[in-house]
This record gives sequence, C-alpha cells and structure tokens, in this order.
Amino acid sequence: MISILLIGKGNVATHLYNVFSSIDVLKVTQLNSRKLENIPQADVTIIAVSDDAIAKVSSKIKNSFVVHTSGSVALKDLKNNTKKGVFYMLQTFSKDKKIDFSKVPFCLEAENDDEYLLLERLAKLIGEKIYKINSEQRKTLHVAAVFVNNFTNYLYKIGEDICKKNNIPFEVLHPLIMETSQKIKTLSPEKAQTGPAIRNDKKTIKNHLNLLNKEQQEIYKILTKSIQNGN
Amino acid sequence: MISILLIGKGNVATHLYNVFSSIDVLKVTQLNSRKLENIPQADVTIIAVSDDAIAKVSSKIKNSFVVHTSGSVALKDLKNNTKKGVFYMLQTFSKDKKIDFSKVPFCLEAENDDEYLLLERLAKLIGEKIYKINSEQRKTLHVAAVFVNNFTNYLYKIGEDICKKNNIPFEVLHPLIMETSQKIKTLSPEKAQTGPAIRNDKKTIKNHLNLLNKEQQEIYKILTKSIQNGN
Repeated sequence: MISILLIGKGNVATHLYNVFSSIDVLKVTQLNSRKLENIPQADVTIIAVSDDAIAKVSSKIKNSFVVHTSGSVALKDLKNNTKKGVFYMLQTFSKDKKIDFSKVPFCLEAENDDEYLLLERLAKLIGEKIYKINSEQRKTLHVAAVFVNNFTNYLYKIGEDICKKNNIPFEVLHPLIMETSQKIKTLSPEKAQTGPAIRNDKKTIKNHLNLLNKEQQEIYKILTKSIQNGN
Repeated sequence: MISILLIGKGNVATHLYNVFSSIDVLKVTQLNSRKLENIPQADVTIIAVSDDAIAKVSSKIKNSFVVHTSGSVALKDLKNNTKKGVFYMLQTFSKDKKIDFSKVPFCLEAENDDEYLLLERLAKLIGEKIYKINSEQRKTLHVAAVFVNNFTNYLYKIGEDICKKNNIPFEVLHPLIMETSQKIKTLSPEKAQTGPAIRNDKKTIKNHLNLLNKEQQEIYKILTKSIQNGN
C-alpha cells in the first residue's frame, strides 16, 4: 500500500485523484491548497498547484517526500526540508476530457534512487511511458512543447484565417493536419520536410507571399529562411 | 460508364489509376506524359504531372474535357482548346502508402455545371469529401497548407532538435503532438490557443529564450508577438 496526499483542486490534481482512487494498492487523500492547517502524513505528497504557488505550498509541508507536477519548475524550487521530487506528465489536461494515462509520458525526477523508484512504481500503476528527466532537461522539454503544441496550434490558426478570408471551410485542411502529425511516428520531421522552402521553389514562395498579410508574410519568410538554412 | 484517360506515372497518377480501376463503372487508361503520340479519347482526361509540365502536356490534347490535379496551377493555365477543369486532392501522397480516399478532400473546379457534375460524380465514386473550390480559393488553400503541413513539420523538427541536444527521446513529445492535432476536430485553433504567449507570461518567455539558439529565438519571438497581437 502506498499512501498519497494530493494537494490542489485543479485539472491535474483531479485527474490524478480519480485515477489513483481506482487503484487498489493506493490510498489517496486530496486537499485544497488553501486549507493546509492539518496536513495528513503520506508516503508521497503531490503538489499539483499553479507554478507560482509551489514554493509557498511546499514550505508548509513536513511530510517525508514532496513532489510537484510542473514542467517549468525545478526540483530545488520545492521548499520543504524533506525529500524532493517531480512527477510531471507531459500532456494537456482538459477538465471534461477523460485522460488515457497509458499514453501519457511520465517525466520523473528525485534526489535519490529510493525516491525515484517510488515515483516509478506509482507511475507504472497508472501509466506505461516513463522517463527519467532531470530539472535541466525538463526545462528544455517545456520549450520544445511550446513549439510543437502552442506554436503549431497558432499555425493551424493562420491556416484557418486564410480559409475564412477566402470562404473555404477549414475542415478541408483537417486530413492534411492529421497526416502531418501522424507521420512523426514513422518518419523524423527532418526527413519528412516537404514544400516550396526546402525545394527552394522561388516562384511559388513569391506567389504565396503575395497572398498573405504583413504578419503572415513575416512568419512565412522567417520559417522559409530557417528551413533553407537547414538548422 | 465513364472513360478516363490518366496522363502521368507519378504518385498521384498511380494512386488514381489503382482506385479508378477498382470501380466497375469506370474505364481507365494510363499514359506516360512523354509518349503522347496516340492519345485515346476519353470522357475525362486527367493530367497528373508536375506543375511546370501541365501547360505543355495540355496543349497537345484534343479530348473534350481536360483537368489537372495541381493545387497551385490555375484552371486557365490548361492550354487545351476544349473544356477545362481541376481535380485536386488536398493530401500528401506517398508512393508505398495506401490512400484512404474516403478521407481525402476533393477540391473540384470546372467552367460549366455539366463538367462540374461529371467531376463530382467521379469524386463520389471514390471519395466522400467534395468541395467546390475555384482557382483563386485553391491558390490560397495551397498557402494555408504550407502553414499547417510544411511549417508545422518544421516546428516538430525544432522540437526534435531541442530534445536531441538535451538527450531526451523525441517520442516524449509524440502524445502532445497527437493531442494538439486531434483537438482541431472539436475546437477551433483560435479557441484552443494556450501557452506563455497568450498568457503574456513574460518570465517564462524570457526563460525559454535563454534556452534557444539564435534562429530558434527569432522564430519564438515572432510567433509569440503574433499570438499576442491576436491577428
């Protein structure tokens, strides 16, 4: 039996509470981070609150092993005086959408092997993809995620804007978007690169720029240049 | 019975030949674009050759109705003296990968209703998603496709580069990439936008920039600025 104390009432905390509750060998308690008067003992205390609140919340906890769930906060930013760790799930969590934990990458970190193995045991009870990622790596992973998630979504938005302006339903582009993302499973993005930039098709590039607004042009140019530099 | 003459031996021509051959009410012949001495009659002549060759190939054809399959060539660039049209499938075609035509968007154009209906009949025999798209719309659709396919793939590459540099397996990011692309089916990219840029989280943005090389910084900055402008 592993006892878990979950601090926080947001998406991550709630999804974790639900999945932990379904596992026989786990005993889980959830606590609001604003009501930390009586903190129960637990083998693992998981702080799932906003990044800015992690230091303050952790400073109030005397339990033996305290971890947070953030992609952008270092292990050493935990301010408990006991053992520290990180239990970071690299996935977007929506309130109403059920999470398939078997597909979620668990990025784990701890100060010592014993605590790492405890986090790994926990992750293996609910998931399958487990990675040992230190604070430095997790920081860079978070930047990479901005590129493949936030910025990619913004390129979808530009695609949608172009469609709207020309009375084309955006759904025409859906299959291409799916195909492009599925492809990474079998082909590295470097090898999958196609399009006028990599072909150095100057005529098409010029035609494309003529169809875009100033801001879209800027983005088109910089990405084209970067693709051609091959960096 | 509809008779089809397919000109070209590339990916698009070959995939079309295979699927047309499987339909009872179609009679299809395939011809190499370099051997156009004896051109057989057909109800629809489909030129599936490289963009640059479309004008020249079409100028040699006297069949009643000639269409091309290109996303970036206008209908009027066909140089036959008979009826013209476009049969553009917005999807990437790989040589060895079977195409699920039920998911391919067919973007059709013709000069008159009769020819348009013929193209539509043809598309409905092999597919399900059919759109009436004129030459002007198709041009802009092609630019939009560059953003959601070529440029998106390049952002994946940057993600992969960051991972490599920090000894992180790129597969850690795969589930996030899948989730981001799947989301467009239920939520518009505009509404799905998350991340430090839209939150105007200056501290995180600054930390991220410190982890990137010059070229990645440039891209990060311009996309962040553009997301914040809300254009």
